[in-house]
Amino acid sequence: MINLPKGTRDYSSIDMSKRNYLIQTIRTQFELFGFDSIETPSIENISTLVGKYGEEGDSLMFKLLHSGNFLKKRILDFLKKIKNNREIVVNNVEKCFIEHMSNKALRYDLTVPFVRYVVMHKNEIIFPFKRYQIQPVWRADKPQKGRLREFYQCDADMISYSWSLWEEIELIQLCDEIFTKLNFPIIIYINHRDILRGLVEIAGIKNNLWKDFTTSLDKWNKIGRDLVKKEMLSKGITSLSFDKVAFFFDMKENFYHKEKHLTIALQNSEIGKKGLRDLSFIYRNIKNISLQKTKLEWNISLARGMNYYTGTILEIVPFYNKNFISIGGGGRYDQLAHSFGLNNIYGVGISLGLDRIYLAMEHENLFQTVSNYPSKVLFINFGNEEVLYAYKIIKFLRKKGISTQLYPNAEKIGKQFRYANDNNIQFVISIGKNEINKNKIRMKDLQKRTEKEYDNINNVVNQLTKKL
Amino acid sequence: MINLPKGTRDYSSIDMSKRNYLIQTIRTQFELFGFDSIETPSIENISTLVGKYGEEGDSLMFKLLHSGNFLKKRILDFLKKIKNNREIVVNNVEKCFIEHMSNKALRYDLTVPFVRYVVMHKNEIIFPFKRYQIQPVWRADKPQKGRLREFYQCDADMISYSWSLWEEIELIQLCDEIFTKLNFPIIIYINHRDILRGLVEIAGIKNNLWKDFTTSLDKWNKIGRDLVKKEMLSKGITSLSFDKVAFFFDMKENFYHKEKHLTIALQNSEIGKKGLRDLSFIYRNIKNISLQKTKLEWNISLARGMNYYTGTILEIVPFYNKNFISIGGGGRYDQLAHSFGLNNIYGVGISLGLDRIYLAMEHENLFQTVSNYPSKVLFINFGNEEVLYAYKIIKFLRKKGISTQLYPNAEKIGKQFRYANDNNIQFVISIGKNEINKNKIRMKDLQKRTEKEYDNINNVVNQLTKKL
Repeated sequence: MINLPKGTRDYSSIDMSKRNYLIQTIRTQFELFGFDSIETPSIENISTLVGKYGEEGDSLMFKLLHSGNFLKKRILDFLKKIKNNREIVVNNVEKCFIEHMSNKALRYDLTVPFVRYVVMHKNEIIFPFKRYQIQPVWRADKPQKGRLREFYQCDADMISYSWSLWEEIELIQLCDEIFTKLNFPIIIYINHRDILRGLVEIAGIKNNLWKDFTTSLDKWNKIGRDLVKKEMLSKGITSLSFDKVAFFFDMKENFYHKEKHLTIALQNSEIGKKGLRDLSFIYRNIKNISLQKTKLEWNISLARGMNYYTGTILEIVPFYNKNFISIGGGGRYDQLAHSFGLNNIYGVGISLGLDRIYLAMEHENLFQTVSNYPSKVLFINFGNEEVLYAYKIIKFLRKKGISTQLYPNAEKIGKQFRYANDNNIQFVISIGKNEINKNKIRMKDLQKRTEKEYDNINNVVNQLTKKL
Repeated sequence: MINLPKGTRDYSSIDMSKRNYLIQTIRTQFELFGFDSIETPSIENISTLVGKYGEEGDSLMFKLLHSGNFLKKRILDFLKKIKNNREIVVNNVEKCFIEHMSNKALRYDLTVPFVRYVVMHKNEIIFPFKRYQIQPVWRADKPQKGRLREFYQCDADMISYSWSLWEEIELIQLCDEIFTKLNFPIIIYINHRDILRGLVEIAGIKNNLWKDFTTSLDKWNKIGRDLVKKEMLSKGITSLSFDKVAFFFDMKENFYHKEKHLTIALQNSEIGKKGLRDLSFIYRNIKNISLQKTKLEWNISLARGMNYYTGTILEIVPFYNKNFISIGGGGRYDQLAHSFGLNNIYGVGISLGLDRIYLAMEHENLFQTVSNYPSKVLFINFGNEEVLYAYKIIKFLRKKGISTQLYPNAEKIGKQFRYANDNNIQFVISIGKNEINKNKIRMKDLQKRTEKEYDNINNVVNQLTKKL
């Protein structure tokens, strides 16, 4: 029984025409905004990736076995190691195993490899550096609707030695342009990690619980207030602390109302006030410049899963299906290069989930105008002599940019016409003995059900390239 | 110390513009010839891939470790298994290990996954099925110049329930169009596995030595006659057998001369005669249709490494550097679907090595006309008020399809101009307090070193979109 690994899938040519349409639309806007295309390898050293995504990320990374002769040596080394140390088997056989068997993994996102790229190539790069990447990433998550183990991300990021909130504004404008071109209204939820830091401060939650706090808070919209509270209490956050700030996460009012409330609440938190100032700058300028298909909404419970975010955070959902899966996200990560030994360098970016945008657009029936660009012409195969005669015309049409197929065998004519029909090929050209003798080209239009004989190849080209 | 795994590399935006040019050229021709785009996942079940590429292939496949909680269970299962059976450790610990630790691998080529695709989707596919794929593959080969561990292949294949030599002719024409468009002359070496079968027959080499024979023969051009002979003898082929056919592998004469010789030599080999007939049909028709930048040459020592080839085989090398690495290859594989349980289905295809074409074209300095499509315009950042004022112009230019950047910070003007210069951005627009008051747009052309003030945004657009 042949099948595919769990969480992976094939893409047919119909799927591909829609995917290529999405990629082309996104790529065009990335380039109009001045982002450069780069690519990084699928495989990174484990040491580059580990610790950047939290514990769950480390365990869901696809790790590659050593290969060739080296593999056998490492197996024997591992067996020797644990034979001499029973403790390992009991306590951390997995860790010891991975250390021996693997030092490479498939990339888990595009952000960490990009920052690794910047650090490695810092002497050739012109800063501020704006790049985009459209490549697959891999996560051994439990597969479910909208969650594949291999999926494409479309990332645009800016990295520089100084930072500017105009970068966030540009990224929001960029998303608006992309989704406007796709005719797909979205909501961008925005929040700021420094505001969350401020709330943690006034709630009296200890610093060492920060990661636990954000990880649980990020589930607010999915599992609700009560379960988030339960999870936070289990991590050691007190009920009193929780109640001090929980009110804000449920606020449904508009931006200015939330701003007023939080300005009062955070008046003694320096970091909280800084977060508020940043957010206010972004929001007011965006309002001024205006958006098209995008609603920008402050969601105070937005925390984002990745460890590496430091400032603004963003999440994108479909406007008419807020509860649909998130189709993109991003934020500021001013410390990530630091973990690779490069200081005072600031990053911010967005990441669009190609497969999720695809799914959401299918769901809302937004691919109506995308066609499967089939071939334009099929040449009937009447036998070797006839094909050889016709081949110069086939070549000529292709030179003119007309996608042209030759049926490979001299099968029954009906079968060959059926092939054209099933593949949405509009025109069929027949050059049999008769046509060769008369020096004619016979062409049938399967859509209009008309047939005509041509004396001149240029008239055929004119007919084929005629616009409606 | 941060680095990349052995045999992998980053691609800068300059690299990417050349790669995208290659991909675009290849894709366009694939589509003009009527091939459809599909994609398959990077990860396949090991059972799908194993045994298709020969022993070396199996060992050079990148295998993925099981992940999550399942991994620990499998480690403990493996340890238990070998504890209870010392024999395994001595004899085949590696095999037992892989069985426990992995069932997935990165694809090794695009052909086997494609055939797996056809077998899995046979009920939705319209045959004859022509598809192309441009995706990376992974091999744990020893890295060296032109041999990466992750590299892109560009494959075009046809699969159907009947076969036709016009498919081979189409593929050769397709290569000729691609390399003509790239202005890159090539040689396509052609041979036929049935001719080799015929030679094996008349040499009296036993059937069970067929794989060894082709594997060694394939090295003829690299290591030479003497070393191939030595290797064949070591596999059990007799010196007498070798000498009976070695003469043909060194033949330097033209096609018709070779054909004459082999027609005599193979007169008693049915399979050999069939191979000759096929090759003659392809060669004569190609000569008749003619080629542009391609020389088609019969190379009797060509055998191809993959196990799965059955008929015609092809290999592509640069015309002016025959001894450069091979930049592509292909052939007929009429039995491959059979190994997945689908009978009487025939396949043929070509595979172009993107990274090798890149390398060969760099070597011959053929990328001169490819430019790095930089942004057209940089807006100087004079501060928040000025940027907010200018932003409507930035938006307008992007809407007009002009790639436009905003410098993110209000840094020193000189630094901002240097950024434009270093990035080959031709135009710099300055809108400071002065320009706002006068309602003007000031634009400098860094190439022509001219500066001008504009009253009207449409005049700016005209200037920016003006063709030379």
